[in-house]
Amino acid sequence: MEIDLRSKIRDIPDFPKPGVRFRDITTLLRDGPAWRHAIKSIADVYRDRGVEMVVGPEARGFLVGATVAYELRVGFVPVRRPGKLPARTLRGEYVLEYGQDALEIHLDALEGCSKVLVVDDLLATGGTIKATLDLVRQLGVGVVGVAFLIELTYLGGRENLKDYEVTALVRF
Amino acid sequence: MEIDLRSKIRDIPDFPKPGVRFRDITTLLRDGPAWRHAIKSIADVYRDRGVEMVVGPEARGFLVGATVAYELRVGFVPVRRPGKLPARTLRGEYVLEYGQDALEIHLDALEGCSKVLVVDDLLATGGTIKATLDLVRQLGVGVVGVAFLIELTYLGGRENLKDYEVTALVRF
Repeated sequence: MEIDLRSKIRDIPDFPKPGVRFRDITTLLRDGPAWRHAIKSIADVYRDRGVEMVVGPEARGFLVGATVAYELRVGFVPVRRPGKLPARTLRGEYVLEYGQDALEIHLDALEGCSKVLVVDDLLATGGTIKATLDLVRQLGVGVVGVAFLIELTYLGGRENLKDYEVTALVRF
Repeated sequence: MEIDLRSKIRDIPDFPKPGVRFRDITTLLRDGPAWRHAIKSIADVYRDRGVEMVVGPEARGFLVGATVAYELRVGFVPVRRPGKLPARTLRGEYVLEYGQDALEIHLDALEGCSKVLVVDDLLATGGTIKATLDLVRQLGVGVVGVAFLIELTYLGGRENLKDYEVTALVRF
């Protein structure tokens, strides 16, 4: 059964600020068959590629990443904002449109891993995912690919991910 | 194969503040077979109970909730902090140890649903999950059960959930 994932994504005008059109995945997420199809579609791309772990940033990256990990029968490693992870962490800072932000990963999270899949819900300018990838590489681990539900192609985020294989299920 | 989930949970002393022992689920989450076993164990309890949707609060509730929804072949509805959900929301406030906080759910998220499963990673005092349950009930939807990976029994959170069937995989 083919499901049109694009039709499951809701447009919200002027969110989070005037002039921005927000692509809302909650309408895809609440549709059981669409959610299953989306996760399976990402997993199928990477199923025989030796992925040992899935890594993803909070909070929406948790939705996709933990579920893809489940389908691939591997574990999931969360990347979080400072102060959220309880054990020793590696921190990376990155630039936002206004100011900067930081992300952390547990220092021991990828021990014993050599190949991971990095996942988030949406590729916009790519700042968050680039920071996530930098943390993974600083831990000395290889990246099989980077997968998203949605890519906003007009924001050019793929330019930040030239060194990686990028998968996006729906492109706007 | 029986997996001892308790042994997969890591103790972090003095986090987030001195004297608190934090139960860290990231060590369970990064273990593929343990993660699979945990999710299946929750799903098995509710598999033939007519669950039409899973609901869970951010951020760690997303990990468990979205994956349980996937296994149950239903959708997932996120409950988030104010300002995160893009469409019209219902807001509920709740009391924390110091001050108060609020959670939101999309007003239309449970349209057409009559029975849901509510999920989070950990039951402590129960404030967050009670606020989540109140939002679901205000939307006129029934709750089949409330499920957690971990319950901290000494905090008495179950007292806040007397009206509900509570499942916890590991109890401390």
